Amino acid sequence: MARKSAPERSGKPSPEKAGQRDRIWNVALVGFGTVGSSVARILVERKRARLRLVAVCNRNVARKKVDWLPVEVVWTENIDDVLSSNADIVVEVMGGLQPTEDWVRRALSSGKSVVTANKQLIAHCGPELIALASRMGQRIEFGASVAGGVPVISGIHEGIAGDELFKICGILNGTCNYILSQIESNGVPFATALREAQKLGFAEADPTEDIEGFDARAKLTILARVGLYCNVAPTSIVARSIAPIDSIDFEYANQLGCTIRQISLAELKGDQLFAAVQPALVPLSSPLARVEGSQNLVMATGAYGGETVFGGHGAGGHPTAVAVVSDILSIARGKQADGIHAGHAPEKTPNVSADFTTKHYLRFMVKDRPGIIASLATILAQSEINIDAVVQKPGCPKSHLPFLITLEECKASLVEQALQQIDALDFMVQPCLHLPILG
Amino acid sequence: MARKSAPERSGKPSPEKAGQRDRIWNVALVGFGTVGSSVARILVERKRARLRLVAVCNRNVARKKVDWLPVEVVWTENIDDVLSSNADIVVEVMGGLQPTEDWVRRALSSGKSVVTANKQLIAHCGPELIALASRMGQRIEFGASVAGGVPVISGIHEGIAGDELFKICGILNGTCNYILSQIESNGVPFATALREAQKLGFAEADPTEDIEGFDARAKLTILARVGLYCNVAPTSIVARSIAPIDSIDFEYANQLGCTIRQISLAELKGDQLFAAVQPALVPLSSPLARVEGSQNLVMATGAYGGETVFGGHGAGGHPTAVAVVSDILSIARGKQADGIHAGHAPEKTPNVSADFTTKHYLRFMVKDRPGIIASLATILAQSEINIDAVVQKPGCPKSHLPFLITLEECKASLVEQALQQIDALDFMVQPCLHLPILG
Repeated sequence: MARKSAPERSGKPSPEKAGQRDRIWNVALVGFGTVGSSVARILVERKRARLRLVAVCNRNVARKKVDWLPVEVVWTENIDDVLSSNADIVVEVMGGLQPTEDWVRRALSSGKSVVTANKQLIAHCGPELIALASRMGQRIEFGASVAGGVPVISGIHEGIAGDELFKICGILNGTCNYILSQIESNGVPFATALREAQKLGFAEADPTEDIEGFDARAKLTILARVGLYCNVAPTSIVARSIAPIDSIDFEYANQLGCTIRQISLAELKGDQLFAAVQPALVPLSSPLARVEGSQNLVMATGAYGGETVFGGHGAGGHPTAVAVVSDILSIARGKQADGIHAGHAPEKTPNVSADFTTKHYLRFMVKDRPGIIASLATILAQSEINIDAVVQKPGCPKSHLPFLITLEECKASLVEQALQQIDALDFMVQPCLHLPILG
Repeated sequence: MARKSAPERSGKPSPEKAGQRDRIWNVALVGFGTVGSSVARILVERKRARLRLVAVCNRNVARKKVDWLPVEVVWTENIDDVLSSNADIVVEVMGGLQPTEDWVRRALSSGKSVVTANKQLIAHCGPELIALASRMGQRIEFGASVAGGVPVISGIHEGIAGDELFKICGILNGTCNYILSQIESNGVPFATALREAQKLGFAEADPTEDIEGFDARAKLTILARVGLYCNVAPTSIVARSIAPIDSIDFEYANQLGCTIRQISLAELKGDQLFAAVQPALVPLSSPLARVEGSQNLVMATGAYGGETVFGGHGAGGHPTAVAVVSDILSIARGKQADGIHAGHAPEKTPNVSADFTTKHYLRFMVKDRPGIIASLATILAQSEINIDAVVQKPGCPKSHLPFLITLEECKASLVEQALQQIDALDFMVQPCLHLPILG
């Protein structure tokens, strides 16, 4: 068992490997907004000898110019300048579907690798872009497209690649999390919390994408592909608004030992993918309950490793730029361009359903009169739905009386059917708010 | 801006790349205990066409044989059979420093890559083994050596590689976390909690490595290298025992809005690495406070991305095996053998100090008499240490009276000096328990 020191000493890497390792990688930035300029700043400040920014492309580029980038950097408004440049890697942080998709295709086709932070682009045509990159011997990386600086895509793809994931659950939209936190801690109505978030820059002037769950849905689509190997269209995933959530719901949720969060959940059961983005009750003991402000958190559950948690800043220039630069480095390290399938079964295209089996939270707003509980209980019993508890906060006006019914575990669709009858009853002031209670 | 579809179609990966991608990787397992058999199970159950188990090496191998592995697998007690086999990757899950180090060196020298879960091996000679692997054009991966199934090494190395980390803080030892949780929730003495943990298999018969912090210190050494590029010896990091922690300390900690955990912390400030493994007070609002049972959690803080959290199962056959298989896959994906330095500055070898500047928790156990507080306050004032609060739980015996003094922020060394005087005072029943209060 003597040590063989001679061969250790003589072993040398092959010349190609050494060449690859010392090589300089030229990077072009398409988009010089918050994320783009943060990427440029990291590349400059960290003085990575192997990464060199060669070009910045943006509309009205003159007004974008900064004095802290090397003079050799080409500033242009014309994507053709980027495509014909000596850039090895094109970083797309411009956003939107068009002309972005065209530009990314052209970059890949002209023999450049691409790093993008564009969730809509990857959700809508990720598989085709990955296939194109693979055909060209290039790579497309998109770690920044989900949960900003939270390294969940590389985590799933590398760190727990050896597991067989069947469930991904997370808080993927910082705007919704901020608004719900505000309703919870300040007891304000939804509209007030939204206005406040807009004033502080946490929500956009048109908040539809966030509030209605479309933003989180694009991210969940990407996670379902990367982690569960399910190729589904974003539109096949149900997205429900957080707008009906009121401060009274946090009071009731708290009585149940829960809080309310916008939860993105995808779970593979046989050939069926259960997936939705929706407000839901989560136990106060869950890591999901403690995600604050604009933080993001993803829990991935595997057959072997159980639950793994990834948390951090879901947005912001610098955290997102870290994800972009990490992807650039991954390409520069020369990892093989094998897309997202390394050693795995081919992608599934399962049926998608939002018909989760959970406990349920039903919050009613009624004009009080005798017999209300009896009417509701009768309809629920007809559907063979078991009531778990009835809770009523004292001291509310009889004309707008909120109260809560929780249901034992059953399918969401069964509850929705019963609610169609219930919402038509004369004492209902507004439609019942129905949320799943996650275990 | 027309799409160039022709070159997209014609682009084909080069033959070598296709060859690399379709290639079968032969794997040999050295060690067939809990982790080793879990690795074998994942390789068999997941039927990864590209990974093939070819050999299992263990002492008294006959009693280890299982019937669920392919008949082609060679069972041997002789490491030479593994070294001369057609294995491309040797998985070392045997543990210990010798003969493991020799065997790993010989595997690398004979042109095989190595995956190991051995924290002591990597803490003690990781850099040399990485250098040897690099010289041989091979790789050594050790994702399972820290925090079991929590993908923190790949996360730091890949997911947030673009950041510049300056601080790593975590709960890296499930045994200590389990014992402390038991003292907290059941109000039992340390010795009882330890016995219970041993009975349930959460602590070993000789628990020294865990309790005294040596296990976590080896892991922190590895994280400091991978994340902070600091090459330090495990023995240069202070490790303090959790044995003096009593249930009264949890009562006091709770009054301060905190709990007590074994915290592994490394923070780079200029040329100095502040590092220690020790019991510490952490705010109840911190993710560290909520780590339960044998879970592990690591928080990495970077100059650009802020705080990123990785959590999951820190031990156990299956979670650790997921980390091992993920490393095998990473090698099979043909990522370049560039060690842990991809695009970064060379390793620093900083001074290591445990002299953190924090608030402090001092728990006294005294024989009561008048003037105690005055004596303590005088000594602390002489050292220019400011008292923050004095807390005394009512109803304790005068002969063993516990009470608490918290101190404003100051260096730990200043407090230790004052405690040398204080511990010599006649009313002290036992030495003062001194814990940092983390912010």
